[in-house]
Amino acid sequence: MSLLLAIQGWDRSAWADRLRRLAPDRTIRVWPDDEDLAGIRYALCWKPPEGLLARLPDLEVIFSLGAGVDALLGDPELPGKPLVRIVDPDLTGRMTEWVVLQVLMHHRMQRRYDESQRAKQWAPLDQPPAAAVGVGIMGLGVLGRAAAKALRSLGFKVSGWSASPKEIPDIACFHGTDGLVPFLTETDILVVLLPLTPDTEAMIDYGLLSGLRRTNHMGGAVLINAGRGRLQVEEDILRALADGILAAASLDVFAEEPLPPSSPFWTHQKVTVTPHVAADSDPDTICREILRQIANYEAGRPLENVVDRQRGY
Amino acid sequence: MSLLLAIQGWDRSAWADRLRRLAPDRTIRVWPDDEDLAGIRYALCWKPPEGLLARLPDLEVIFSLGAGVDALLGDPELPGKPLVRIVDPDLTGRMTEWVVLQVLMHHRMQRRYDESQRAKQWAPLDQPPAAAVGVGIMGLGVLGRAAAKALRSLGFKVSGWSASPKEIPDIACFHGTDGLVPFLTETDILVVLLPLTPDTEAMIDYGLLSGLRRTNHMGGAVLINAGRGRLQVEEDILRALADGILAAASLDVFAEEPLPPSSPFWTHQKVTVTPHVAADSDPDTICREILRQIANYEAGRPLENVVDRQRGY
Ligand SMILES: NC(=O)c1ccc[n+]([C@@H]2O[C@H](COP(=O)([O-])OP(=O)(O)OC[C@H]3O[C@@H](n4cnc5c(N)ncnc54)[C@H](OP(=O)(O)O)[C@@H]3O)[C@@H](O)[C@H]2O)c1
Ligand SMILES: NC(=O)c1ccc[n+]([C@@H]2O[C@H](COP(=O)([O-])OP(=O)(O)OC[C@H]3O[C@@H](n4cnc5c(N)ncnc54)[C@H](OP(=O)(O)O)[C@@H]3O)[C@@H](O)[C@H]2O)c1
Repeated sequence: MSLLLAIQGWDRSAWADRLRRLAPDRTIRVWPDDEDLAGIRYALCWKPPEGLLARLPDLEVIFSLGAGVDALLGDPELPGKPLVRIVDPDLTGRMTEWVVLQVLMHHRMQRRYDESQRAKQWAPLDQPPAAAVGVGIMGLGVLGRAAAKALRSLGFKVSGWSASPKEIPDIACFHGTDGLVPFLTETDILVVLLPLTPDTEAMIDYGLLSGLRRTNHMGGAVLINAGRGRLQVEEDILRALADGILAAASLDVFAEEPLPPSSPFWTHQKVTVTPHVAADSDPDTICREILRQIANYEAGRPLENVVDRQRGY
Repeated sequence: MSLLLAIQGWDRSAWADRLRRLAPDRTIRVWPDDEDLAGIRYALCWKPPEGLLARLPDLEVIFSLGAGVDALLGDPELPGKPLVRIVDPDLTGRMTEWVVLQVLMHHRMQRRYDESQRAKQWAPLDQPPAAAVGVGIMGLGVLGRAAAKALRSLGFKVSGWSASPKEIPDIACFHGTDGLVPFLTETDILVVLLPLTPDTEAMIDYGLLSGLRRTNHMGGAVLINAGRGRLQVEEDILRALADGILAAASLDVFAEEPLPPSSPFWTHQKVTVTPHVAADSDPDTICREILRQIANYEAGRPLENVVDRQRGY
């Protein structure tokens, strides 16, 4: 029984090489090179073409090669087989690195120091300690929690927002629609680590951004999004930047990726763009995790990190 | 009995205001406004003029307003009274923020992403996890230890180097002259948090930088110095950058401060300059810590964080 790699937008052959090296006993097929879709038991996917998975007669489990499954769930013909997402300490650690970096760049006013440097100006700025800064994390899942803990241990005042109630030591936890406004009120730096679902789509809009605290040394609120691009209304971010509601933004994800050359984000002085790399993991690590799950599954043990289709994540 | 504020290079009156507000019962004199030097029991100093402290007939304790005491010890007429340095969680936390920010900027190749952004290029780069990167910290004192722990908890392989042997969980500790080469060999990113003493002056030179590991995703070794400027030989850093031994540097401290406009660091593409602000603390916090020590001292308890004049830190 074979595995199918169904990837768009990433380097397919690199993934195939790694998977073949790690699972020499298995037949690895690669879409679209292989035409025969029979006998495929496991599909390992990143943005597969719509309808492809429905044409696999022997499919048992769908594995997402990423932590987010919004693209897969967007396939109207997605078969009703278990859908497993990636949860992996390597990926989590990388996301924490990216989030901590972006939070500290804003908090420590690194962009202003860069400007001073270009102007050859020795210009110390007033700097509050991390304890005076509220970082609010939307999404307290695997990634949000890890980022929250790292930021807390650097001394920030950290709060979080999720669908269901949570208790996390030293983190103020808010949840649901009622919890949103109080959560935003305490937040100078908003970190978005939500999944994209019908409920979360476009929720980072002008109204939400207006609810953030903006009396701080950064000169306004800061938005950091590494969840998904379609969580954010991009014109609203530009408007909030123009109005001074937002002092700056760091965006790893965009409604359209690659970000089109026409996007104003590229040249915006207050926006940091990274190309959806916040938690880019080594294919080896991801393949090993999926092979571990397949081995467990074949030994009759339950699959882990199965997506709840009702919730959409 | 009065306190004297003897400050050069910082905003004297801001410090005087804070101190007067926090210690309304005490007489606060400010050099050079006050000519009467009699009756001064405590001197609170940052780069006081040479010889000033020797002219205080009633001096009992010298307090440094910063963690480093090299400028004070450089005064050939420094009285033999106890010299107390600042150790404060607020200062330590700020230094950790700055070090973690600089380490992550290099590790996550933020400057290369900034270039891609300017060129409107969506260009993901191969990114190893923190666990593949060796961060070596020179100086395992109050500041070095705190930075080491924060970097370790982000997943970096952390090692440290000090004068005397140390044991710190999960940190490879090296010490003394014999430990230096093995320490450097494992280090991709060198963080300097040493005090400036006759032994450490100019030790960050071409030979030392040549000993660093330079086969990594950053394209060479990285130097991060927040200790003191005179620890580094600035021409050697430029040569190491030109040779490719160093891929980049983040410098908060310089042999001459403010960094003169003629310094090539200002415009060097691979150098990040910050104006000695890595651990700039709030005067309130520092004044409170010193007033706490004075109260202890007057109650007959021992002073803490007294500098060992023999060692020079
Ligand atoms: N940029 C990148 O490189 C990259 C890499 C990996 C992942 N990601 C993105 O990061 C997202 C989060 O990953 P994860 O592993 O942390 O996911 P997760 O473990 O499933 O956590 C999702 C979190 O979001 C909360 N949430 C979902 N819908 C919500 C709603 N309507 N209102 C309030 N809270 C809601 C959940 O609340 P409950 O806990 O109450 O369920 C949970 O705390 C992924 O979905 C993906 O889009 C991006
Ligand atoms: N940029 C800024 O804003 C800023 C702010 C504050 C401080 N600083 C600088 O940071 C320095 C360190 O502060 P700290 O509070 O961590 O000092 P500390 O607690 O006195 O620690 C100094 C460390 O350096 C080690 N060391 C000293 N001389 C050495 C030598 N010859 N060889 C090997 N190791 C040696 C010591 O080793 P042992 O442990 O074996 O004694 C100790 O681990 C200060 O002296 C100051 O210059 C800069």
